[in-house]
Amino acid sequence: MEVLDAARLDHHRILRTGLPEAVFGESKTVDQLVDILQAMLKRPTVVLATRVDQRKADQVCERVKGIRYQKTSGLLTGNEEYIPENISRGTVMIVTAGTSDMPVAEEARLCLKYFGHSVETLYDAGVAGIHRILAHGERLQQASVLIVVAGMEGALPSVVAGITPAPVIAVPSSIGYGTGAGGFSALLGMLNSCASGMAVVNIDNGFGAACMAAAINRKRFPPESGEHFSPPTE
Amino acid sequence: MEVLDAARLDHHRILRTGLPEAVFGESKTVDQLVDILQAMLKRPTVVLATRVDQRKADQVCERVKGIRYQKTSGLLTGNEEYIPENISRGTVMIVTAGTSDMPVAEEARLCLKYFGHSVETLYDAGVAGIHRILAHGERLQQASVLIVVAGMEGALPSVVAGITPAPVIAVPSSIGYGTGAGGFSALLGMLNSCASGMAVVNIDNGFGAACMAAAINRKRFPPESGEHFSPPTE
Amino acid sequence: MEVLDAARLDHHRILRTGLPEAVFGESKTVDQLVDILQAMLKRPTVVLATRVDQRKADQVCERVKGIRYQKTSGLLTGNEEYIPENISRGTVMIVTAGTSDMPVAEEARLCLKYFGHSVETLYDAGVAGIHRILAHGERLQQASVLIVVAGMEGALPSVVAGITPAPVIAVPSSIGYGTGAGGFSALLGMLNSCASGMAVVNIDNGFGAACMAAAINRKRFPPESGEHFSPPTE
Amino acid sequence: MEVLDAARLDHHRILRTGLPEAVFGESKTVDQLVDILQAMLKRPTVVLATRVDQRKADQVCERVKGIRYQKTSGLLTGNEEYIPENISRGTVMIVTAGTSDMPVAEEARLCLKYFGHSVETLYDAGVAGIHRILAHGERLQQASVLIVVAGMEGALPSVVAGITPAPVIAVPSSIGYGTGAGGFSALLGMLNSCASGMAVVNIDNGFGAACMAAAINRKRFPPESGEHFSPPTE
Amino acid sequence: MEVLDAARLDHHRILRTGLPEAVFGESKTVDQLVDILQAMLKRPTVVLATRVDQRKADQVCERVKGIRYQKTSGLLTGNEEYIPENISRGTVMIVTAGTSDMPVAEEARLCLKYFGHSVETLYDAGVAGIHRILAHGERLQQASVLIVVAGMEGALPSVVAGITPAPVIAVPSSIGYGTGAGGFSALLGMLNSCASGMAVVNIDNGFGAACMAAAINRKRFPPESGEHFSPPTE
Amino acid sequence: MEVLDAARLDHHRILRTGLPEAVFGESKTVDQLVDILQAMLKRPTVVLATRVDQRKADQVCERVKGIRYQKTSGLLTGNEEYIPENISRGTVMIVTAGTSDMPVAEEARLCLKYFGHSVETLYDAGVAGIHRILAHGERLQQASVLIVVAGMEGALPSVVAGITPAPVIAVPSSIGYGTGAGGFSALLGMLNSCASGMAVVNIDNGFGAACMAAAINRKRFPPESGEHFSPPTE
Amino acid sequence: MEVLDAARLDHHRILRTGLPEAVFGESKTVDQLVDILQAMLKRPTVVLATRVDQRKADQVCERVKGIRYQKTSGLLTGNEEYIPENISRGTVMIVTAGTSDMPVAEEARLCLKYFGHSVETLYDAGVAGIHRILAHGERLQQASVLIVVAGMEGALPSVVAGITPAPVIAVPSSIGYGTGAGGFSALLGMLNSCASGMAVVNIDNGFGAACMAAAINRKRFPPESGEHFSPPTE
Amino acid sequence: MEVLDAARLDHHRILRTGLPEAVFGESKTVDQLVDILQAMLKRPTVVLATRVDQRKADQVCERVKGIRYQKTSGLLTGNEEYIPENISRGTVMIVTAGTSDMPVAEEARLCLKYFGHSVETLYDAGVAGIHRILAHGERLQQASVLIVVAGMEGALPSVVAGITPAPVIAVPSSIGYGTGAGGFSALLGMLNSCASGMAVVNIDNGFGAACMAAAINRKRFPPESGEHFSPPTE
Repeated sequence: MEVLDAARLDHHRILRTGLPEAVFGESKTVDQLVDILQAMLKRPTVVLATRVDQRKADQVCERVKGIRYQKTSGLLTGNEEYIPENISRGTVMIVTAGTSDMPVAEEARLCLKYFGHSVETLYDAGVAGIHRILAHGERLQQASVLIVVAGMEGALPSVVAGITPAPVIAVPSSIGYGTGAGGFSALLGMLNSCASGMAVVNIDNGFGAACMAAAINRKRFPPESGEHFSPPTE
Repeated sequence: MEVLDAARLDHHRILRTGLPEAVFGESKTVDQLVDILQAMLKRPTVVLATRVDQRKADQVCERVKGIRYQKTSGLLTGNEEYIPENISRGTVMIVTAGTSDMPVAEEARLCLKYFGHSVETLYDAGVAGIHRILAHGERLQQASVLIVVAGMEGALPSVVAGITPAPVIAVPSSIGYGTGAGGFSALLGMLNSCASGMAVVNIDNGFGAACMAAAINRKRFPPESGEHFSPPTE
Repeated sequence: MEVLDAARLDHHRILRTGLPEAVFGESKTVDQLVDILQAMLKRPTVVLATRVDQRKADQVCERVKGIRYQKTSGLLTGNEEYIPENISRGTVMIVTAGTSDMPVAEEARLCLKYFGHSVETLYDAGVAGIHRILAHGERLQQASVLIVVAGMEGALPSVVAGITPAPVIAVPSSIGYGTGAGGFSALLGMLNSCASGMAVVNIDNGFGAACMAAAINRKRFPPESGEHFSPPTE
Repeated sequence: MEVLDAARLDHHRILRTGLPEAVFGESKTVDQLVDILQAMLKRPTVVLATRVDQRKADQVCERVKGIRYQKTSGLLTGNEEYIPENISRGTVMIVTAGTSDMPVAEEARLCLKYFGHSVETLYDAGVAGIHRILAHGERLQQASVLIVVAGMEGALPSVVAGITPAPVIAVPSSIGYGTGAGGFSALLGMLNSCASGMAVVNIDNGFGAACMAAAINRKRFPPESGEHFSPPTE
Repeated sequence: MEVLDAARLDHHRILRTGLPEAVFGESKTVDQLVDILQAMLKRPTVVLATRVDQRKADQVCERVKGIRYQKTSGLLTGNEEYIPENISRGTVMIVTAGTSDMPVAEEARLCLKYFGHSVETLYDAGVAGIHRILAHGERLQQASVLIVVAGMEGALPSVVAGITPAPVIAVPSSIGYGTGAGGFSALLGMLNSCASGMAVVNIDNGFGAACMAAAINRKRFPPESGEHFSPPTE
Repeated sequence: MEVLDAARLDHHRILRTGLPEAVFGESKTVDQLVDILQAMLKRPTVVLATRVDQRKADQVCERVKGIRYQKTSGLLTGNEEYIPENISRGTVMIVTAGTSDMPVAEEARLCLKYFGHSVETLYDAGVAGIHRILAHGERLQQASVLIVVAGMEGALPSVVAGITPAPVIAVPSSIGYGTGAGGFSALLGMLNSCASGMAVVNIDNGFGAACMAAAINRKRFPPESGEHFSPPTE
Repeated sequence: MEVLDAARLDHHRILRTGLPEAVFGESKTVDQLVDILQAMLKRPTVVLATRVDQRKADQVCERVKGIRYQKTSGLLTGNEEYIPENISRGTVMIVTAGTSDMPVAEEARLCLKYFGHSVETLYDAGVAGIHRILAHGERLQQASVLIVVAGMEGALPSVVAGITPAPVIAVPSSIGYGTGAGGFSALLGMLNSCASGMAVVNIDNGFGAACMAAAINRKRFPPESGEHFSPPTE
Repeated sequence: MEVLDAARLDHHRILRTGLPEAVFGESKTVDQLVDILQAMLKRPTVVLATRVDQRKADQVCERVKGIRYQKTSGLLTGNEEYIPENISRGTVMIVTAGTSDMPVAEEARLCLKYFGHSVETLYDAGVAGIHRILAHGERLQQASVLIVVAGMEGALPSVVAGITPAPVIAVPSSIGYGTGAGGFSALLGMLNSCASGMAVVNIDNGFGAACMAAAINRKRFPPESGEHFSPPTE
C-alpha cells in the first residue's frame, strides 16, 4: 500500500460526465500528489489539483515537470495543450462580494478555463452598496450562467438572481467571524433565498461551482444520444 | 404557592428604564394570566401581555374586564388611557419582507403605540424585488429609527440599512422551512450583515424590537440627571 | 393594514427573471391567500401558491374561482391558459429515491409544467439498488437538466451525476428519522458530494429546483441583449 | 484581476448612511490592504481597517505613510484630520465584563472616536459582583446609548439594561472555553435577555456596535429631508 | 415480554445511594405505569413517577389506588407514610425567575418533600429586576443548598450564586422562544456562569435537582463507614 | 485604559460567597496578569489564576515574586500562607476516567487545596473496566462529595453516582476526537445520566467543580445568620 | 404517476445481500402502503413495513388480507410462511436500558424473527444499577451478537461491551428530554464509547440493528463464492 | 500522583472481551506514554497506542526499546511475538473512498493484524465512479466482514452494503471542507443509509472499526460457555 496505484484514476469519467477528474489536494501528502500528477500528465486531458497550499505546491512543482502553481486559487495545473476549444454556449460570469472572496472565485475561474469555457469576472461588488451591482445589470443579464461568491450573510447571489434570467450558482465563502465564521451563515442565507433560479454548492467550493457551470454552459448539449461518449478533449 | 403573588410585579421598572413591564403570555396558564392582568389593570400604566394564542385569549377576555385581544399580534392589551403622549423624537418605521411577517411586525407596532410612540408601516417589501424598497428611499431616510422584520435569508434589513442613516433594528422571523425553519437562517444573516447601523433582537421578538426602538426614540432623552425618575405616564 | 395590498405584487419580476412570481402559502392565512390569488388571477401569467395544506386549500378553492388544488404537491394553481409554449431547450428529468419523496418531486414537476417546460419523471429509483438507476442510464444522459430528490443519506444525486453530463439539481427531502429527521443529513450529503456538475437547493424545495431547472432549460437563452424584457408568456 | 480596483470603493456610502466605509482586514493580504488604504487616504474621510493582526499591520504601516496601528483593538487608522466634530447628541458609554473583553471594547471606542462621537468607558465591571455595576448607576442612566461587551454567559448587558433608560447595544465576546468557546453562549444569553431596550450585534463585532451607536447618537437626526446628503465630514 | 417484570425494580438502590427510585413517566404507556406503580406501592418507600401528563395520570389514578396526581409538577405520588423524617441538615431553597418556571420548581419541591427534606420557595424573582432578588439576600445566605430555575437567558442562578455561600443547583427551563426555545440558551448561560459554587442539571430536570440537593442536604452525612446501608426510610 | 485598575478586584466576594476570587488567565496578556497578580498578592487571601499556558506562566513567574506555576493544572498560585485551615466537613474525592483527564482533575485538586479542603484522588478508573471502580466502592461511599472527570462518552460519573450516596459533581473533559472532540459528547452524557445525586459544570471546568465542592464541603455551614461574613481566611 | 409502480420493488436484493427488502412506512400514505404490500405479498419472501402508526395500520390491515400489525414495534408483517429456517449461527440477544426502549427493541426482535434468526431478550437492565446487568454476565458472553438499546446518556452498550467478547450493535433511542430529547445524547455517548467491539446504528433504528445482526449471525457465511446467490428463503 | 500507576492497566480485559487494551495516545504526554508502554511490554500481549503524532512518537521510540512507529496510521506498536494465530473465521476487507482516507484505514488494518486477523485492502475505490467498486463485487461478497472508510458525503459504505451479504462497518473520515469538515457529513450519511447490514463507528475511528471487525471475525465464536475465559493469546 506504500505504492499508490495512480493508474486506478477514473479514466472513463470524462466520457460519462464531460468533465475531467480533478485531485482533491488538501489531505494528500506531497508524495501522493507527485505520484498522482505524474500519472495524470500522461493522459490526454488537462490536469487539476485543488486546495494545495504554498508549501506543498513548491515541493510538488520542484519534483513534477509541467505542473505550475496558481497561487491565489491554490490550484496545481498542467497539460494546458489539452484545454478543449469551442465548447462554450456563452459566457460564464463570476461575481464576488469582496476582495476576500477572490481565492474561491479564482478557483472557479481557472477550472472553467481548463474545462474550455469562456469566463468574465466582476469582483468586489458587495451587497451593502446595491448601486454597484445594479450598474452592471446588462452584463449580468447576458451571461449564460453566473457564479456568485459571498461570505458573511451571503446576500449577493439573491440580489443577482433578482436581476438576471440566467441560472445563478451561489458559492458561500468562509469569510466572516463570530457567527459567520466557517461560512455557515452565508450557506444558510443562500439556501433560503427568496430569489429564484439559484442553487448552491458547498462552502468555498469554487471547483464544484465551475463543474456545475460547465455542465450548464456546454455547447453541444443535450445532443443526440451517444454523442456524450465522444469527449471534447480528445 | 397556588396563590400567585401578582403584587410582586416590578412596579419600579418604569421608573428605572422608562418602559412598562409586559407579561410573557406563552407559557402561562389562563388562571395565571387572569391574576396578573387584574393586578396590572389597577396600576397607572398600560397593560400588555405578549404571545397569547386565541384559545387562551378568549378565556382571559371573558374573565377580565378591560382587556382586549389583538389577534394578528397575539397581544392582550388594556389601560389604554395611560398611553403616554408627546414622547416621540420622531417616527418609528416598521418594514416587513412579506405578508407572513405581519404577526411579528404587528406585535412591535402595537407595543410602540402603547409605549406612546408614533409609528408608520411599510409591509411586504421583500428583497427579491429591490426596486420595491428603493421606491420608498426617502421615507426610510427620514424615520427616526427602523424595525425591519424578515424570515428566510433575512436580507431585507441589510438592504434598508444601506439606504438610511437611521439605526435599524433587525428582527428575524421564523418564516421558512428546511434549513430556514425556526428563523436561524434569518438571524445569522442579520448578525453577519455587511451593512452598518444595525443590531438584532431574538427571532420573532417584535416586543423586544419595540422596546429598543422606544429607548432610541424617546423625546426627552438624554435629559438632566434624575429626570428619568419622573416617568412619563404618571 | 388589515387590507392587504395585493396590488403590490412584483409585476416586473417576470420581465427581469423570466419566471412568474409564486406565493409562499405555508405561513399565510386563508384570507391572505384569497386576496393575493384573486389579484394574481387578473394578471396574464400562471398562478402558483406553494406549500398549502388540504384544510386551507379547501377553503381557498371554495372562495376563489379558477383555482385548483394539486394534492400530492400541495400547490394551488390557476390561469393555465397562460402556460408558455415552446420555450424548452430539452427535457427536464425528475428522479426520486423513494415513494416518500413524491410531494417534493411533484411540486417541482408541476411548477415546471406551469413555467412551460417539458418534464419526464423516474420515481422510486433509490440508491440501495444501484442497478435500478443504472438501467436508465441512457435516459439520464439525454436529459437537458435533472432534478434529483432524496432523503435519508441523500446519495442518489451523486450517483446520477456520476452517470450524466447534464447539470444535476439536488433536492434534499425531509424524509428520515433520528439523525436524518428534517433532511439535514441529505443536505450535507449533497453539498459534500464527490460527484461533479451538481448544485443544491433548500430541503423540500421543489419549487426552487424547478426555477433553477427552468433558468437552465429556457430555449432562447442567452439571447441578444434586451430580449429578456419580452417575457414569453405575453 | 491582479490589479485591485480600489477606486471601486463605495464613495457614496457616507452620503446615504452617514458612516464612513471601513475595510474588513482579517481576510485580506498585505498587498490588498496597501492598495485599498492608499486609495482611501486620498479621500476626505477618516480611514479605518478592522481585525488586522500585528504581523500584517507592521508590513502595512511600513509601506503606507499616514496609517497607524492601534494594537489592542487591531485597527489600522488614518486621516485623523477628517474626524467630524460636534455631531454627538450625548455620550456613548462602553462597559465590559472583564479585562479580556478589552480588544472588542477598544475597537468600538476607537471607531466611535473616528466617527466623531464622545465616548466614556467603564471596563471590568463583571456581573458576578453586581455591586460593582450598581455603584455606577447614575453614569449608566445618563449615557445617550451604551455598548456592553461580555463573554461567557453574557449576562452583563441584561443587568445594565435593567438600570438605564438608554438603549443598550450588547456585544458578545468570544471569551470563554468549553461550551462558551466562540461566544455563542454569550450571544444566546443576550438574544434571550428578559431585560428591555437592548439589541445585539455579531460576536466580537465592536465595529458594528460602534456603527449602531453612532446612528443612534448622531446629533442632527432626524432632520429635515435631504440633509443627510450633506455629510458632516466634508 | 408483554408481561412487564416490575419486580426487577432496583430495590437495592436506596441502600446504595440513599435515594428512592423514581419512574420516568413520559415515555411509558398507561399499562406500563399501572404495573410498575402497583409493584412499587408494595415496597416500604415513597412512590414517585415524573413527567406524566394529565390524560395518562387520570387513567392511572383510576386504576391504581393510593396514587395521586400533582398537577402543576406532573408527578404521580404515593406511599406518603414512608416519607423519611428528620434527615435534613438544613433548608433547601427553591428560587424561580418567573411564573412559567413553576412546573419545574414544583417537581423539585415535591420530590424533596417525598425524600424527607425541608423546603422553602421564592418564586418569580427574575433577574430583570435585581432589587427583587437582593431584597431576599439574608434568606438566600442561610439556605443549606439552593435550586434556582430559570429559562430564557438563564441569568438568575449566577446572580444568586454571587450572593450566597451555599451551593447552587441551576436548572435551565425550556421557557423561551426563537433561539431560547428548548432551554439551550439558559443551559449554556448557566454552564458558562462567572459565578462560583454552582452546578447544572439537565433542562427542566426538577427531579435531578432535587436528588442533588438531597444528597447535599442529608443530615447524617458523611457518617461512619457502612451507615449508608441503613437507609432512612426503613 | 492602558493602566489596568487592579484595585477594582472584588474584595467583598469572599465575604459574600466564602470563596476567594480567581483570575481567568486564558485570554489575558502577560502584562495584565502581572498587574492583577501583584495587586492580589497584597491581599490576605490565596492567589489563583487558571488556564495559563507554560509560555505566559514563565514570563509572569519571572516578573512576579511569590507566584509559582503548577504545570499539569495550568494554575498560577501564591499567598499559600493564607490557605484556610480546619474548614472541611469531610474529604472531597476526585476521580478520573483516564490519564488524559489529569489536567482538569489537578486544577480541581489544587483549587480545593488552596480553598482549604481535604482532598483524595483516584485517577485512571475508566468505565470500560467497571471492576476497577467497583473495587473502590467503600472509599467512594465515604467521601463527603465527589468530583468525577471524564471525556469521550462521559459515563464514569453515572457509574460512581450509582454507588455512592454523596453528591457527585461531573466534569466533562475535552478528551476525544471526531464527534467527541471538544467534550460535548461527555457533557451531554452527564446531563442525561440516569443516575441520581449528580450535577454538571462546564467542559474542562476543574475550577468550577472545586468551587461547588467547596460550597458543599465547608464545615461551618449552614450556620447562624451573619457568620458568613466572618470569612475563614482572615 | 398516480399509479405507484410497486412492481419496481428491488426483487434482486435478497439475492445480493441475503436480506429481504422492507418498506419504510412512516412517510407513506395508506394508499401507497396498500399498493406496495399487496405487491410484496405475491413474492416468496416475508413482508415487513416499519414505523407505521396505529391509525394507518388499522386502515391498511382492513384493506390488505394477510397483513397484521405488531403494535409495540409499529411493524406491519406478512408472509410468515417464508420465514427462513436453520440459518442462525447462534442467538442474537437484545438488551434494553428501560421499559421505554421497548418499541425499538421489539422492532429489532420481530425483524430478526422474520429474517429467520434466533433471539433472546433482556429488557429493562439500565446502567444506573450495574449489578442488574452484571447478574446476566454469562448469558451476555454466550450470545452470538448483541443489540443494546438505550436512550438518555446511552451508557448501557458500553457496559455490555465491557463484559462480552461478542460484537455489540448499539441503538440510541429517542427517549429523553431537554438535551437528551431526540436521542442525540445517546448517539454521541455510543459513538464515543471507551468500550471495544461495538458499532452504532441510527437513532431508534431497530430495523437497521436487526439487519446488521442478521448479517453477522447468518450461519452459512462466509461460504464458497456464489452461494450467496441461492438465497435461504426459496 | 506524579507517578503514574501503569500497573493499574486492565489486565482482565482480554479475558472478558477477547481484545487487548490499547492506549489512546493523542492526549497523553511523552512521559505518560513511556511509562504506560514500558509496563505494557512486560505483559504477554501485543502493545498498541493510537493517534500518536510523529514528534511524540520519535521521543517515545528513542526511550522505549521494542516500540516502533507506523507512520501513516499514527500507531505505536510492540510485542509482535504475541500476535495470536489461527483465530480468523475469514478475511476482513478494508475499502477506502480515496487516498486521503488511508491513515484511518491503516489504523484499522494494523490493529487487525495485531489482533491476529487476516486482512485484505481495496483502497481508493470512491463512489463517484461506481464501476470501480462494482468491478470488485466478488471479492466484496466473499469477505467475512468489511470496513469501509469514506469522508465527504460518506456514500461508499452504502454502495458496498448493497452488493455484499457480509456485515459492513462504516467509518466516517474527517476528510472534507466547508460543511464536510470534521466528518459530520460523512457520519450522518452513514447513519441514514438506505442500505442494510451496516453499522457505524466514530469519525476517524479505525481502531474501533478493527475491534468490531475482530469481534465478528473471531473463529471460535460463539463457543461453549466459559471458553472465552481462555484467551487466545496466552
